[in-house]
Amino acid sequence: MKYVYSFKEGNKDMKNILGGKGANLAEMVGLGLPVPMGFTVSCDACLKYYEDNCSINSSIEKEIFDEIRKLEEYTGKKFGDLNNPLLVSVRSGARVSMPGMMDTILNLGLNDEVVKSFSEKSSNGRFVYDSYRRFIQMFADVVMGFPKSSFERLFDKIKEDKGILKDSDLSLTDLVEVVDIYKSEYKKLAGVDFPSDPKIQLLEAIKAVFRSWNNDRAIFYRKMNEIPDSWGTAVNVQEMVYGNLNNNSGTGVAFTRNPATGDNVLFGEYLINAQGEDVVAGIRTPLSIDTLKDVMPNCYNEFCRICDILEKHYKDMQDMEFTIEDGKLYMLQTRNGKRTGKAAIKIAVDMVNEGLITKEQALMRVDEKLLDSLLHDMFDKDSLKNGKVIAKGLAASPGAAYGKIIFDVNDIVNKDDDYILVKLETSPEDIEGMSICNGILTIRGGMTSHAAVVARGMGACCVCGCGSLSIDSVNKTLICEDGTVLCMGDYISLDGSTGIVYLGKIDTVAPSISGDFETFMSWADNVRKLSVRANADNFRDAKVARDFGAEGIGLCRTEHMFFDESRIFNFRKMIVSDTKEQREESLKEILPYQKNDFIELFNVMNGYPVIIRLLDPPLHEFLPSKDSDISTLADSLGISALDLKKKISNLKEFNPMMGHRGCRLSITYPEIVVMQTKAIISAAIECSKNGIVVKPEIMVPLVGDVSELEYIKSIIKETADSIISNSDISVNYVIGTMIEVPRATMMADEIAKEAEFFSFGTNDLTQMTYGMSRDDASKFLNDYYEKKIFLNDPFIKLDTNGVGSLMKIAISKAKSVNPNIEIGICGEHGGDPSSVYFCNELGLDYVSCSPYRVAIARLAAAKSVIRERLD
Amino acid sequence: MKYVYSFKEGNKDMKNILGGKGANLAEMVGLGLPVPMGFTVSCDACLKYYEDNCSINSSIEKEIFDEIRKLEEYTGKKFGDLNNPLLVSVRSGARVSMPGMMDTILNLGLNDEVVKSFSEKSSNGRFVYDSYRRFIQMFADVVMGFPKSSFERLFDKIKEDKGILKDSDLSLTDLVEVVDIYKSEYKKLAGVDFPSDPKIQLLEAIKAVFRSWNNDRAIFYRKMNEIPDSWGTAVNVQEMVYGNLNNNSGTGVAFTRNPATGDNVLFGEYLINAQGEDVVAGIRTPLSIDTLKDVMPNCYNEFCRICDILEKHYKDMQDMEFTIEDGKLYMLQTRNGKRTGKAAIKIAVDMVNEGLITKEQALMRVDEKLLDSLLHDMFDKDSLKNGKVIAKGLAASPGAAYGKIIFDVNDIVNKDDDYILVKLETSPEDIEGMSICNGILTIRGGMTSHAAVVARGMGACCVCGCGSLSIDSVNKTLICEDGTVLCMGDYISLDGSTGIVYLGKIDTVAPSISGDFETFMSWADNVRKLSVRANADNFRDAKVARDFGAEGIGLCRTEHMFFDESRIFNFRKMIVSDTKEQREESLKEILPYQKNDFIELFNVMNGYPVIIRLLDPPLHEFLPSKDSDISTLADSLGISALDLKKKISNLKEFNPMMGHRGCRLSITYPEIVVMQTKAIISAAIECSKNGIVVKPEIMVPLVGDVSELEYIKSIIKETADSIISNSDISVNYVIGTMIEVPRATMMADEIAKEAEFFSFGTNDLTQMTYGMSRDDASKFLNDYYEKKIFLNDPFIKLDTNGVGSLMKIAISKAKSVNPNIEIGICGEHGGDPSSVYFCNELGLDYVSCSPYRVAIARLAAAKSVIRERLD
Repeated sequence: MKYVYSFKEGNKDMKNILGGKGANLAEMVGLGLPVPMGFTVSCDACLKYYEDNCSINSSIEKEIFDEIRKLEEYTGKKFGDLNNPLLVSVRSGARVSMPGMMDTILNLGLNDEVVKSFSEKSSNGRFVYDSYRRFIQMFADVVMGFPKSSFERLFDKIKEDKGILKDSDLSLTDLVEVVDIYKSEYKKLAGVDFPSDPKIQLLEAIKAVFRSWNNDRAIFYRKMNEIPDSWGTAVNVQEMVYGNLNNNSGTGVAFTRNPATGDNVLFGEYLINAQGEDVVAGIRTPLSIDTLKDVMPNCYNEFCRICDILEKHYKDMQDMEFTIEDGKLYMLQTRNGKRTGKAAIKIAVDMVNEGLITKEQALMRVDEKLLDSLLHDMFDKDSLKNGKVIAKGLAASPGAAYGKIIFDVNDIVNKDDDYILVKLETSPEDIEGMSICNGILTIRGGMTSHAAVVARGMGACCVCGCGSLSIDSVNKTLICEDGTVLCMGDYISLDGSTGIVYLGKIDTVAPSISGDFETFMSWADNVRKLSVRANADNFRDAKVARDFGAEGIGLCRTEHMFFDESRIFNFRKMIVSDTKEQREESLKEILPYQKNDFIELFNVMNGYPVIIRLLDPPLHEFLPSKDSDISTLADSLGISALDLKKKISNLKEFNPMMGHRGCRLSITYPEIVVMQTKAIISAAIECSKNGIVVKPEIMVPLVGDVSELEYIKSIIKETADSIISNSDISVNYVIGTMIEVPRATMMADEIAKEAEFFSFGTNDLTQMTYGMSRDDASKFLNDYYEKKIFLNDPFIKLDTNGVGSLMKIAISKAKSVNPNIEIGICGEHGGDPSSVYFCNELGLDYVSCSPYRVAIARLAAAKSVIRERLD
Repeated sequence: MKYVYSFKEGNKDMKNILGGKGANLAEMVGLGLPVPMGFTVSCDACLKYYEDNCSINSSIEKEIFDEIRKLEEYTGKKFGDLNNPLLVSVRSGARVSMPGMMDTILNLGLNDEVVKSFSEKSSNGRFVYDSYRRFIQMFADVVMGFPKSSFERLFDKIKEDKGILKDSDLSLTDLVEVVDIYKSEYKKLAGVDFPSDPKIQLLEAIKAVFRSWNNDRAIFYRKMNEIPDSWGTAVNVQEMVYGNLNNNSGTGVAFTRNPATGDNVLFGEYLINAQGEDVVAGIRTPLSIDTLKDVMPNCYNEFCRICDILEKHYKDMQDMEFTIEDGKLYMLQTRNGKRTGKAAIKIAVDMVNEGLITKEQALMRVDEKLLDSLLHDMFDKDSLKNGKVIAKGLAASPGAAYGKIIFDVNDIVNKDDDYILVKLETSPEDIEGMSICNGILTIRGGMTSHAAVVARGMGACCVCGCGSLSIDSVNKTLICEDGTVLCMGDYISLDGSTGIVYLGKIDTVAPSISGDFETFMSWADNVRKLSVRANADNFRDAKVARDFGAEGIGLCRTEHMFFDESRIFNFRKMIVSDTKEQREESLKEILPYQKNDFIELFNVMNGYPVIIRLLDPPLHEFLPSKDSDISTLADSLGISALDLKKKISNLKEFNPMMGHRGCRLSITYPEIVVMQTKAIISAAIECSKNGIVVKPEIMVPLVGDVSELEYIKSIIKETADSIISNSDISVNYVIGTMIEVPRATMMADEIAKEAEFFSFGTNDLTQMTYGMSRDDASKFLNDYYEKKIFLNDPFIKLDTNGVGSLMKIAISKAKSVNPNIEIGICGEHGGDPSSVYFCNELGLDYVSCSPYRVAIARLAAAKSVIRERLD
């Protein structure tokens, strides 16, 4: 087995062996581009190192020094040579980029003799001694693990002693002194002298990089990004080149296209007489890459030529590092560049038009999550720089928003003003107010809490579960962790894409959707098999959904319709009624409104299916909680407030999520089913008369046993068929059920005999499969992440092992008795790319998600088909 | 296919064809016993009747009349004959007895001519006309479906007109008049004359019995008793005999042994000159069967002889009906008799001793549920007669109790007084008080609510979910549905075996366990494969469990240990602590108590395994709710009551059942695991030193992912092993997990790699599989039963389809990676016979149930083995 590869031996497809950086360096060497020569110690060598109890065995050691010898031959320099010493960098490079996670050592090969002789011979002693001092410091830190601070403190002390502010003001003599002090410190800490033998330096440096694969940062990064521990990292040993050698030198980073806009122009910056870290450090302001044209025209032209070669070769926008040493250009790195959503789309579309890539390749290039930024307000970057972070919660619904703090929707004074609603947790009563506010911030609740789900549905910015803040409801203030007290009316700003809460008002910029977006999405639509529907509860959401390309409504939650002022009264009256007759009386009042809801929906969804779920939440959610509201309702009902309170308290439940809700309501109060069916079917008839193509699908929630469905189905059919037979228009409606309690998955064969469609309600299915309430989980899930017990929030990313196994069983049982049953998903997971991949794998017919996620789902659905082909 | 069988053709094993009654009548004929001759129209004929759109086809009709002809030959009587008419009874008789569910017609064959002639020829015209009037009335009711009341009203009117009070005072002339009036009424209602042709009468009567198979009562009874609709009923047509012919006639019912005590003496009663319904009606007081010896010595001796034959033949205690017509004894029915628990055991043991049956047959004879009555107080029968029922709730924990109403355990004045605790729902705070009260009554909560589970564990009488009562907590009164108001201190009585609540004090009688019981149970133990453990949380329960034969503790809920006054303070302090250090401080105070808990348990369970579950419930359950308690705690913690309230409110959850509990507590607060492990292991060491054989099994609750178990296991192991290595005694402990969230069943193969045992927590597993909170379900489950959507409470009888499927998957996955894993069940289902059968079928190692159910589980476990062999 071979463990060490010269750059001349590798290529870009050897990432598994050479790591990303090493493979691309080798590829550039193969392309004949100017790359400082070197070699890669492979990932396998790293694994072997761990296998051999953290040691490099003699055969690998031999391979390394064989490559050093070849490098000496190639460069004409020699390790430890006083006249022409070989100096190298030692850099980690794993199979996928793990920026900043692992360690780097520069200037390796220096020692007292080399430095002395080299300094005398070169015209730049200052530069040589500065390089040496940096090397000692890096070696002490990376290889020996000594605290960085001890060397930094010494360095600062010298500057202080000499009254010097800038590093560059240190004279050669000063630097010689620094090196001496550093070496003493090293000896003090290590108990031995700083190693002068470059070979020992090299082996120790390589081992240190191997070790860094398992530092806490790297382990955590891998867990978060699902990178297997078993990959290991490669180590790149490369001849040093110096952008800080003189004023004919420099260093920079550049992208072949603009990573923010996608424009097809070279984009980047550089510094004259500087090393890579200076560009990053931000002490000197780099210059735009354009100006290099005038400063070093040859280098610039050469760089442009290389960019063109690389982009055509990799068929993707490249992110490159380069160094110019005394007028000669060297390429230090190239890789596919990260980009904004906007740029990702533009580059993908442009490259297809340029004939560089296929449409399918273009689709695979765009991370679904990037689409979010195209559809929501974002903070203005300049304005953001002044923002003071006061808390961080869950990034529950993307976008950026500012507004005045209010603690209750009743605090809204002017609907056109900017408000942020801050609540312990929202409830259905707040929905109308939520749509007026710019953003929503909750103290409790997870990614699928009420606030999060509703906000995503509205496309409103929302930060949830921000437990470090607390609300003083008596004084109407918001108290930050550091004690800051914010009052009602104070401005805060929310970033729903990161979960960060800022003090004050940060300007936002509106999204702009380009024609490229339409083009790109049409390619996705041509490829995907999964249909994409939206969860929409009113015609406004439905319109947004259609605009984003939804092919129907996968979930219309009828309960949201009842909070409208015009009907909440009658609905509450219905709830507290004692008899069926009283309930029917109230429902009669609601029927015309409900019918109109569906007419509006059907009109918008002309020709597309609309799944309407029967009333689902526990009834007490609709009842007022404030004394004043209770009195008002009691008065208008003609009962005492005390009696009403008793009724309300009787409706309270210990575990409402598993209480009297879903189809259980329909079984206790079949008259609600009758009213809703009447509304749906008569709306369908009216729309049909107006030439609208109506496809109503009535969905029974929370079914766990086929008897439940049978009972409710018979009520729906009786009601619907009687209306239809009394009209002169025929309406084709279908009846199906949500699969959201684990029992339904086990009984799916029985249930599928009665159901024309299944819709996996993965929010509830996840809750019940885990036995974990999404509203309470935020309290302990952080401990789960910290202790690495959970890697993902199962309410965001579908748990394919547990919940997914139940889904698989359900699908197979259902299809065994009803092969043509339509199966979809309407949980929040419908808008999560990895969950969409899984749904495609399961062979579902559609996914349904909030309107603002429809585009994400469409792209994910297309990518899952392509991935399948590639597998 | 043959549809009609003479009694001469059948036998007792043909119940599927002839129904129970028909098969036994045929059997008695075969034994040569005096049975009025007749024939049975089979269950298949009933099914055919429904198949043929509710008609009897000509070939079945022919079979019927062929049998009539044979019956005429046998009896020398003739259908419609004026001199010697054949009169028959037509009775339903399904495969299993469905008492009172279906219809009967007597005296069939009478018409005007027959009656006239028969009346003239016989010396008893009154008797003949009375029979005719009964026949018309029955026919009108059963065959034609006319309201009974119309005939009853006419009858009462005649008596009134004539100034007569008792039926028997009506003269022959009166009865002739009644018959005329009845016939007119019949014609008025039917539009045609009463059918005079006995053949038509017969066919219509048979069809009516077939129809009665599908009346609402019968359908409901079948659903409740899981009798398939597809069985159909047979019809028995039998020559009439008359116990009311004269004073040399009579009728009675008797048991071959005493069904209350099991004593081997004839037991029964009879009436002279009476029909069967007179015995039941209770107008005349029947005489003890003994007295028949003097009244009709020949009949008595003959009856004794028949009893002996039947019991030896059926090898079981028989329940018989007989009629004496003019000095001749006829047997009308025999069947295995129902009996009390005490009798069931005694008869079973006696019959084995008599060599009549095997031990296994004896075991199969005893219904597990009957054992309950042997272990709990029951109401004194005489005292019960005066009890006024005020409400009916769920029969949550068997037994009978009386006491003064209290609404709070703090209302207990004298621990030796008799109290009934009445609460909306109990909470862990109430446990100590509950053990002092005679019984517990709750308004809310189902069969596995806190009150129910705890009461069963204690063996205390409990009625739950009694929603028709309401508590006025302000005035401390209990308000009944009829408006009756009971105050604190008023007496009520509870029957925990029926759910009935009585006003006042009803005396109870203590159970007495006989030597027969021990003998019987030892036979069960010899047969069963399942081990039976008990759920016990303290040494008192553990002792009871051992007394009832428990072979270890399957579930020790450690949380119950913390409510003791001596530690609740420190435990609350721990909960509201802000830092780990503070928590550890409080836990240190609790450790010695907790250690002592386990020492006591290990001592009682010497040699048997003890499964200890780590702390499980949400912490807020332990916190005080009353303002006064909060102030006290706040004071002693040195914080303000407001601050404490805030902390308590922060701990509140939306759905605590799916909240921060179980292993999630252990992950957030590993210091609790450390304390509990220390207590368990150091107790084990101390007991071992004293020669006790200790088998601790530490159980991690609510695991859904193997990472949870891995994390907690490592804490337990580290803690335990360090204590063990510092002692000079080795302790073998094992670590396992509860399988109680659906996800755990799907991940069972991964989890089983880390777990040494699985214990199915079927209470929670049922809740989460159904998505149904046991504390809230009582609100809607009644609607489910009424609408026949659920036939059983899945919290009582394990749902073998849904929950059972998950269990099967879990077991198969677990054994695939860990074939020797110990698997048991510790939910409430462990004490339910049908669930125990299922556990045996699944091949579990043990079931664990409340101590008072251990005997039930032992018997059920034995019976499931025998059933398996019989299958």
